[in-house]
Amino acid sequence: MSVVMRQPLRPGGAADTQAVAEPRPASGGVRRLSAHAVDAACLRAIARALDGVPMRIELWNGASADASASPAATVRIGDRATLLHLAADPDVAFGEGYRAGRIEVDGDLVGMLAAIVRKQVGAGRRSPALVRALRAARNTLARARRNVAHHYDLGNDFYRLWLDREMVYTCAYFPTPEATLEAAQVAKMDLVARKLALRPGEVVFEAGCGWGSLALHLARQYGVHVRAWNVSHEQTGWARERAAREGLSDRVEFVEDDYRHMTGHCDAFVSVGMLEHVGRPHYAALADTIDRTLDRTGGRGLLHFIGRNAPAPTGRWIARRIFPGTHIPSLGEAVAGVLEPHTLAVVDVENLQPHYARTLAHWLSRFRAVEDEVTRRFGEPFTRMWRLYLAEAQAGFLGGNLQLFQVTFARPTRPALRWTRAELYGEAPTL
Amino acid sequence: MSVVMRQPLRPGGAADTQAVAEPRPASGGVRRLSAHAVDAACLRAIARALDGVPMRIELWNGASADASASPAATVRIGDRATLLHLAADPDVAFGEGYRAGRIEVDGDLVGMLAAIVRKQVGAGRRSPALVRALRAARNTLARARRNVAHHYDLGNDFYRLWLDREMVYTCAYFPTPEATLEAAQVAKMDLVARKLALRPGEVVFEAGCGWGSLALHLARQYGVHVRAWNVSHEQTGWARERAAREGLSDRVEFVEDDYRHMTGHCDAFVSVGMLEHVGRPHYAALADTIDRTLDRTGGRGLLHFIGRNAPAPTGRWIARRIFPGTHIPSLGEAVAGVLEPHTLAVVDVENLQPHYARTLAHWLSRFRAVEDEVTRRFGEPFTRMWRLYLAEAQAGFLGGNLQLFQVTFARPTRPALRWTRAELYGEAPTL
Repeated sequence: MSVVMRQPLRPGGAADTQAVAEPRPASGGVRRLSAHAVDAACLRAIARALDGVPMRIELWNGASADASASPAATVRIGDRATLLHLAADPDVAFGEGYRAGRIEVDGDLVGMLAAIVRKQVGAGRRSPALVRALRAARNTLARARRNVAHHYDLGNDFYRLWLDREMVYTCAYFPTPEATLEAAQVAKMDLVARKLALRPGEVVFEAGCGWGSLALHLARQYGVHVRAWNVSHEQTGWARERAAREGLSDRVEFVEDDYRHMTGHCDAFVSVGMLEHVGRPHYAALADTIDRTLDRTGGRGLLHFIGRNAPAPTGRWIARRIFPGTHIPSLGEAVAGVLEPHTLAVVDVENLQPHYARTLAHWLSRFRAVEDEVTRRFGEPFTRMWRLYLAEAQAGFLGGNLQLFQVTFARPTRPALRWTRAELYGEAPTL
Repeated sequence: MSVVMRQPLRPGGAADTQAVAEPRPASGGVRRLSAHAVDAACLRAIARALDGVPMRIELWNGASADASASPAATVRIGDRATLLHLAADPDVAFGEGYRAGRIEVDGDLVGMLAAIVRKQVGAGRRSPALVRALRAARNTLARARRNVAHHYDLGNDFYRLWLDREMVYTCAYFPTPEATLEAAQVAKMDLVARKLALRPGEVVFEAGCGWGSLALHLARQYGVHVRAWNVSHEQTGWARERAAREGLSDRVEFVEDDYRHMTGHCDAFVSVGMLEHVGRPHYAALADTIDRTLDRTGGRGLLHFIGRNAPAPTGRWIARRIFPGTHIPSLGEAVAGVLEPHTLAVVDVENLQPHYARTLAHWLSRFRAVEDEVTRRFGEPFTRMWRLYLAEAQAGFLGGNLQLFQVTFARPTRPALRWTRAELYGEAPTL
C-alpha cells in the first residue's frame, strides 16, 4: 500500500498515524476518540480504500494523505461533517459535498474518477444492493413522466448551450477520433440507419426520441416515415416545431406519450438512449410493445443503451440527483428481458464504449465553457452537480464500468439484413 | 387451412375425411375406430399441424394429404407403427423413422425442414420441456468425455471423407457467398484472429480445439503460442501429429483434458464450437476457468457457438442420436452464464447465421457424394441418420431457429481493442 500520511494531522502533531488514533479521556470522564483522532482515522481509511489512485486528500486543517506516490489531483474536504459522511457513504457524500462546494477537486477530475472506477472494476466488486435498486426502478406511467421531466425538462435552452447543433443527447460515433462532435452525431445516425437497412417508404417507430434529431434525419436522408414517442413535453414541442420548420411534418409524427402506449405497425423499431429509463420491472412491457408493433416477416430493430458488465444498481447519488428511476442493464439483462420473450433474433451487438467516453469529453468541455451562464440561470450547486455528473459518466466509460451497446435485432424468420458486416464499412456483396 | 386430402384414404373409399373417421363396431362387439379410420385421422392431424408447409404426406397404402397447395417434397410413411409414432411424438419419430428407412423424403429435404422450422419459429413456439432438458445436460467429467467420444471419436477417416482440407468442423465465414468451403474456413480463422487483435509472442488458450486447425493457424500465421484442450482422444492424437509434421510442436501444445482442468496464464482465450457441449449447469465452471487463466489487464477472448433466440431444450432426437449432453444457449444465457459472473465486458457480438447455413450446405453435398463409402463402413441407418442431422441443422439456420454467435469479450479495464470495426474490414485508424 502506498498511502502516505502527511503532516499536520493535528495541530503540532506528528505524522505518526498510529499515535493520532490513540483514545484519550474526554472532558466528561468517558473515554472517547478526540475529534482530531477521528479525522485522522477517517482520512486514513479513505486513502486506504483508494490505494493506488493518483490522488491526494486534504482536510480543512491542512492534514493530508496520498493514495499513491504521484497524485495527479487533490480532493479538498472542507469540514468535518463532510469527511465523516464521506467515510460512511462515499458515493452520496462525494456527490452532495461536491455539489455544495464542501469538496473541491484541483487537477484532473475525470482522470481521478476514472482511476477509482478502474480500481473498483478491476477488483470485480459486485454491489449487494441490486434488489433494492431494482425495486426503486418501478416506473409507473406517472412516475416515468416525472422522472423524465426531472432531467429532460430542464429547458431546451439549457441543453442548447452545450449540446451539438442537432441536439443529440446520446453517444456519438466518431469515424476517426479527431472527428468533430457535430460530424460524429450525424455519423451515429447514419450508422443506425445502415444497420437497419432502411428502404424508402418504410415505417420506423422510435421509442424515446429526445429532440427528434434521429427521426428527422431518417425521414430526410432515408425517405422513411417515422412516428416517434416521448413523454418529455419540452422535447416533443421542440421536435414538432423543428419538423414543421424543415417541412417534414407529413413524414415525421411526434407523439407525447409513454412507450407502453405505442400502437400501429412498423418495419423497423428503434430506441436510442431510452432503455436506461425503462427499469427492469418493465422490460416485459417494452418487449410486448415491440412485438405488438413490429412487422412479423420483415421487421427489425435497434436498441442503443448504456450497459454494464454485470447486473448492478445505479449509483445512489446519480439516482437521487440526476436520473431517478434509472436502471443500467447488463447485456444479458437487456437481451433476456426485452428480446428473448418474443424470440427476436440478435443480429449484431456493437460496444461503442470509447465513443461515449469521447462524446462525454466533448460535452464536459462545452459545458465548462458555459458554466458562468449556467450558474446565472440555475445557481452554483446545479452547475457543480452537472459538472460532476458529466465527469463521472466519462470516468465510468474510461474506467470500464460502463459500456454502450447497440443491439440490432430482427424477427427470426426474416432474411439476413446483409451477407457480412463489411458492407457497413465499405465495398461488400449485398443480399 | 390448405390441407387437401387425396384418395384413396381406404381401399375404394371416398376422399370425404369426415366419413372415414366415423367409428364402427369392431369384431369383438366393442365400438372402436377401424385401422383405416385411425390412419386417416393421423394423416389429417399431421397435415393440419404442418399447414402451409409445401409438402405431401403419403402412406404405404397410397392415401395422402397435402399440407399446402404446391408441395415441393413428399414424405412417404412406410407403415402404421411409424405413422402412429409420428402423430404422437413427431421429433423422435421422424428421426428414427428416417434413420430406419421407414420414412422416405422425395424432393427438397432441406427446404421442407426449413419451412417446418419457419412455421414453428414464426408462431413463437416455446418448449415446455426446458427444465428437463437442462437437467439432462449435467456433464460430469466422465460423461462429458463419453458424450464427446460419441460424436467426435467416430474416426478421423470418417470426417476426412467430407470435411474441408483443414478439418474444421464449425461454421465457416464466407467473405462472398461464392467462396469455397476451404477458403471460408481459413477466412473464419483469420476473422477470429483479427477480432482478438493478436500480437506475436502472446499466449492463446483454446478450449475444445477439434482437430487443431485454429490453434495451428494462429501459431503459424500470427506468431502466437497456443495451448489447446480437448477431451477427444481421436482428435488430440491427430492434432499432435499434424503439429509435429508442420514443425509447430514447440509453439502449439495439445492437451487431452477437460476445460475445467485448464491451468496457466493466457493473453487471449478462445473457444469455437464447444459451449454447445458444456451444458448450462456448468457455465459457472467455464466462467471460473476463463477468469482463472485470462490476463487481468490485457486479457480478451472469443466464444463462437450455436445459439437460440430464447432458452429452449435441444431436440430430443438430436440429443439422443447425435449430440448427447448438449445445450444450445440463447445469447442471454451465454452472456449471463459465462461472462457476467466475473464482469467480463462484451466487446462485440456477430451473428453468422447465413454462414452456417452455407457451411452446412457444403457439408451436406460433400456428405451425399460419399454416402456409398459411409454406408459400406457404418451401415445404412448411420448414413441416413447423418444425412438427416446435417439437413436438420441447415434447416434450423435457414428457418431462423438457430443462430451462430461470435462473442468477443475483454477484461473491463483493458483498453479498447480497436477504435471502430471498420478496421476489421478495410482501412481505418488503429489504436
